[in-house]
Amino acid sequence: MVHVGHIDMPRQSSIHNLYLRINLRTKSIKKEELDEIVVRNYLGSKGIASYILFKELRAGVDPLSSENKLLFLTGALTGTNAPTGNRFSVCAKSPLTNAWCDSHCGGSWGPELKFAGYDGIIVEDKSPEPVYINISDDKVEILGAGNIWGANTFSTHMILKDKHFNRRMPRVACIGPAGERGALLAAIISEGRAAGRGGMGAVMGSKNLKAIVVTGNKYRPDDLVSDPEGFRNAVKSCYGKLLEGKWTSLSPPGRMPLYGTVGIVRDINAAGGWPTRNFQTGTFEHFSELMGETFAENLWVPRKAPGPRPCYHCPILCAHVSIVREGKYLGLYDEGPEYETVWAFGAQCGVFEREAIAKAEYLCDYYGLDTISVGNTIGFLMECYEKGLITNDETEGLSLKFGDAEAMVAAVEYAGRGHGIIGKLISNGVKRAAAYIGKGSEKFAMHVKGLEVPAYDPRAAQGMGLGYAVGDRGACHLHAWTAGEEMLQPPSLDPRKTEKKAGFVKTLVEETNVAWDSAGVCRVLGYTLNIEDILELVNTATGFNYNLDEFQKIGERINNLTRAFNCREGFSRRDDTLPERLLMEPLPDGPCKGEVVKLNEMLEEYYELCGWDSIGRPTKEKLRDLELDFVIPQLYTG
Amino acid sequence: MVHVGHIDMPRQSSIHNLYLRINLRTKSIKKEELDEIVVRNYLGSKGIASYILFKELRAGVDPLSSENKLLFLTGALTGTNAPTGNRFSVCAKSPLTNAWCDSHCGGSWGPELKFAGYDGIIVEDKSPEPVYINISDDKVEILGAGNIWGANTFSTHMILKDKHFNRRMPRVACIGPAGERGALLAAIISEGRAAGRGGMGAVMGSKNLKAIVVTGNKYRPDDLVSDPEGFRNAVKSCYGKLLEGKWTSLSPPGRMPLYGTVGIVRDINAAGGWPTRNFQTGTFEHFSELMGETFAENLWVPRKAPGPRPCYHCPILCAHVSIVREGKYLGLYDEGPEYETVWAFGAQCGVFEREAIAKAEYLCDYYGLDTISVGNTIGFLMECYEKGLITNDETEGLSLKFGDAEAMVAAVEYAGRGHGIIGKLISNGVKRAAAYIGKGSEKFAMHVKGLEVPAYDPRAAQGMGLGYAVGDRGACHLHAWTAGEEMLQPPSLDPRKTEKKAGFVKTLVEETNVAWDSAGVCRVLGYTLNIEDILELVNTATGFNYNLDEFQKIGERINNLTRAFNCREGFSRRDDTLPERLLMEPLPDGPCKGEVVKLNEMLEEYYELCGWDSIGRPTKEKLRDLELDFVIPQLYTG
Repeated sequence: MVHVGHIDMPRQSSIHNLYLRINLRTKSIKKEELDEIVVRNYLGSKGIASYILFKELRAGVDPLSSENKLLFLTGALTGTNAPTGNRFSVCAKSPLTNAWCDSHCGGSWGPELKFAGYDGIIVEDKSPEPVYINISDDKVEILGAGNIWGANTFSTHMILKDKHFNRRMPRVACIGPAGERGALLAAIISEGRAAGRGGMGAVMGSKNLKAIVVTGNKYRPDDLVSDPEGFRNAVKSCYGKLLEGKWTSLSPPGRMPLYGTVGIVRDINAAGGWPTRNFQTGTFEHFSELMGETFAENLWVPRKAPGPRPCYHCPILCAHVSIVREGKYLGLYDEGPEYETVWAFGAQCGVFEREAIAKAEYLCDYYGLDTISVGNTIGFLMECYEKGLITNDETEGLSLKFGDAEAMVAAVEYAGRGHGIIGKLISNGVKRAAAYIGKGSEKFAMHVKGLEVPAYDPRAAQGMGLGYAVGDRGACHLHAWTAGEEMLQPPSLDPRKTEKKAGFVKTLVEETNVAWDSAGVCRVLGYTLNIEDILELVNTATGFNYNLDEFQKIGERINNLTRAFNCREGFSRRDDTLPERLLMEPLPDGPCKGEVVKLNEMLEEYYELCGWDSIGRPTKEKLRDLELDFVIPQLYTG
Repeated sequence: MVHVGHIDMPRQSSIHNLYLRINLRTKSIKKEELDEIVVRNYLGSKGIASYILFKELRAGVDPLSSENKLLFLTGALTGTNAPTGNRFSVCAKSPLTNAWCDSHCGGSWGPELKFAGYDGIIVEDKSPEPVYINISDDKVEILGAGNIWGANTFSTHMILKDKHFNRRMPRVACIGPAGERGALLAAIISEGRAAGRGGMGAVMGSKNLKAIVVTGNKYRPDDLVSDPEGFRNAVKSCYGKLLEGKWTSLSPPGRMPLYGTVGIVRDINAAGGWPTRNFQTGTFEHFSELMGETFAENLWVPRKAPGPRPCYHCPILCAHVSIVREGKYLGLYDEGPEYETVWAFGAQCGVFEREAIAKAEYLCDYYGLDTISVGNTIGFLMECYEKGLITNDETEGLSLKFGDAEAMVAAVEYAGRGHGIIGKLISNGVKRAAAYIGKGSEKFAMHVKGLEVPAYDPRAAQGMGLGYAVGDRGACHLHAWTAGEEMLQPPSLDPRKTEKKAGFVKTLVEETNVAWDSAGVCRVLGYTLNIEDILELVNTATGFNYNLDEFQKIGERINNLTRAFNCREGFSRRDDTLPERLLMEPLPDGPCKGEVVKLNEMLEEYYELCGWDSIGRPTKEKLRDLELDFVIPQLYTG
């Protein structure tokens, strides 16, 4: 542990190695470096988090207790001029799943933290009273948040930016009222983006931490790389490819610049894997109302100033802004909605009114909630309501039928406020809702390990099914996004086949861990770039000079460490499963009609390829091979 | 007309003399100086506006046509270190009254304009498409606002600040959807404050002008004064007095720092002049729920960081922030509500729920509406509804009864959206609403010249009645705020008497024009400081060395010029009147029970003191005496 004053020299190699450790109870603020070997072996962000949380948390810790730790970490490329070098992760044990959680966010907060001189923040313990953290280069303060506790996230951003601007615009990451009260679906909102999944907002709330504000005047992007010339060449090469990419090109614009992530609605629905009305079907008859093309024509503002705020150093520009110019939601202006949100409040709820979807997203942002999980849970409750499993008393009188856009919006508002039984059920997620309702509803409660299933029906993409089942944070679409090959039209892999999917998933998981989530760049790059492109950026930025095998091995190491984290918490093969609907009810429509997820055959093969035993636990051999010897005593007795 | 490049030298005397003239149709942007004699004779802000608008507008111009001009002007002390040196005015012919209008706003936008090098902006003509103006020192641009047209004012602030950040935090003045559609009660919102009255937001909207963004790096406060040492002494003297003032002291805190403007609710209700349920009575039985003390305990956040954003250089700190931490409006965070707003959505509507009042204010800010006029009009419609003069069809089903907080909030929302007949009636003000409803409702439509009466019942303060009647912009509480002497407890002037009120009103009107509204400082200073204090600030800042007579004469000149403006528009004695209720229905309760406003006797005397003829027109003699010779040919033929 070292205390470092103002550094005028650009850092040399192993640049990403200064962390703030902030104890909210004792108010101690320390600056510390990690061993260089740890940085080399885990790279950044999710990787570093897996190391810290495995080492520092005891098994069985209550995620909402003072013992949990909340990590805000940047990746190796965050803050550099690398394309999409903007992401940060928020990691902790999740109160939603009681498992590992890494939640990622773009925008501008992560780079600002790097410019202030820090690679990450380890937040420990719990403040007795509401506080926020203000970081301005060497100055790090814990300040009283009594005056903003209770405020929506838009106001919180505004007031903190006004308060702390200092030559640069302060960047804010904060929670809203949902996180403050510990709602399990609470997100952390930052500059029009969210670290949405897994209830990281609830952990932040449990620590009485309202926000972290950052301004960084210490470093410029060039200071953050060890081989500036090599890095510039690598960046240039990436830009060249991105501008040529079918999806990512700016000129002529590909579907990402044109339609953002919503650009894939058309293909996913055509693949028969756009989960509709709580996964009762895989195609939505109104999908064309929700395609990127339709949003671009009817709700989004054109891409010109002043308008969408792209993430820092993004050459793809998938960000869009919705504006509602008439009707009930007049005056609404919000970033998004993204693909997952459009699905969650759209097809999942049988709703096709774009303005209502934008309003639902706005409310999630306002109160600080995860749109995916909220929409998933509302769809579940709509099915329960239509089946007579919940009463009007429990819905506060809402007629919660599929397709009722106004009821959907009201339900989101109740979720934000935690109002009534309905508000509490929604804001704590589908697993708890099903446990409350019972009566067989668990069979169509769409979650894995407690995390709500997102916007791809795995019966129309077997690989996605395996990815959901083995996801370290639960049903995550990003854990192994096979949809690119299985669902984008025309698919390059047969979505109905299970052959070779295990290997493909393993590769994706490991590459995801290292190349995107620990490097700190955006997954959308993956439409055009591959792991070797990222490796070149990482090597010139860090000076680590990994070869491809070493680099991929970092991804495997992280996957084994988060798996070990979950094993230590008691997770095992029985948890690597899917909701009964996906395993037992054949898809009733679309090109994959008749399919269920054939999980077991893929799972066996996946475990074997991973070097995990029959209950899904990494073998000692595998752990040793990955330099994870320290894990062994925690998973094996004797 | 001169074009001025970057000026490195501090300006000498007559410092406030560089204006931007921006034509939104031709996109011409000119920098021009006024004759020094004009600046000397009109000082700044309202004074300068009266000169420009009288000279440049033709009689009978349609206020929402391209011929109207919209002026954003700072005062002589705006941007200096003078206490509350922060105000700017927005002036134009009002579409609400078809009369003169000056609307004032605190905050930080005015000083920023001064720091950028400008004393004001004259906006001419109309852009064919939505635009906004961005000013950063010498760079002045007209930019497309297509992407923010339709956005609420909170989002508009956020996106423009993020876009135009340039070493300093940009300051924004903008309209919301109400102004865009030309609602006559539309306000201009700036940094948590509003230039609320008279429909200046509608004029801005009619010009397709969404916002003006300013960052000023050119001057510091000290550059804006001609005699820095003398000015510092004058400032010091003012601070000393303010800190001793009964209402303004910070230590021990007086009622203004403690309770803001809401601190006077107690006294105004005790005086029997707190208009309740559309002026049916003068006391509100639930007033204690709406006293400053109660707000401070129950809704406002304590005064500590991060919290209320005081106006630039304010030593009084009356600004408060409301936060709603439970219930229907959870997450709400907004600056205010102020005294007038608490009245408008409180006593005027028979409502005592503080959170509902805060929500109503939030909605007015969101859509960009004047809280005073909106609340006044809703109270009027509640009376109409209770009397059966409007139907449920016309109220969109709202049960618009006095005391129904939820209906009141819904009505504000409809006003913001212009939804249904009710929304259109409210957002266009009480005069039009009464004209639509008819059936004798005009008798209790509480407006003067079309501007809604604010929060003092003049039957309990005769001077306020005269002030309302002769106000150049209509029923304005600030035109001659006799309430300080007539209503604050114990009153120093008998509120029931009319003797000497005309002279008192004349003095207040003239002092207000020059010492507060043209100097660019806040009226709240007047709780402690007097015109001589302001004169000393103005003299040391400008180098004009006025004596007190000259200074007061500026105020008289302005009052005659705005009066002449209105005469030219066809206003005369018959318009200097009050709603029938105030003239005919005796106050039914309180210490002034039985009183009506005895207007005529005061009006005669006022005209005579002013040197105005029997129809309220300035005589040629008076005009010549005030160096307003150029007015004569426009008011007199032959």
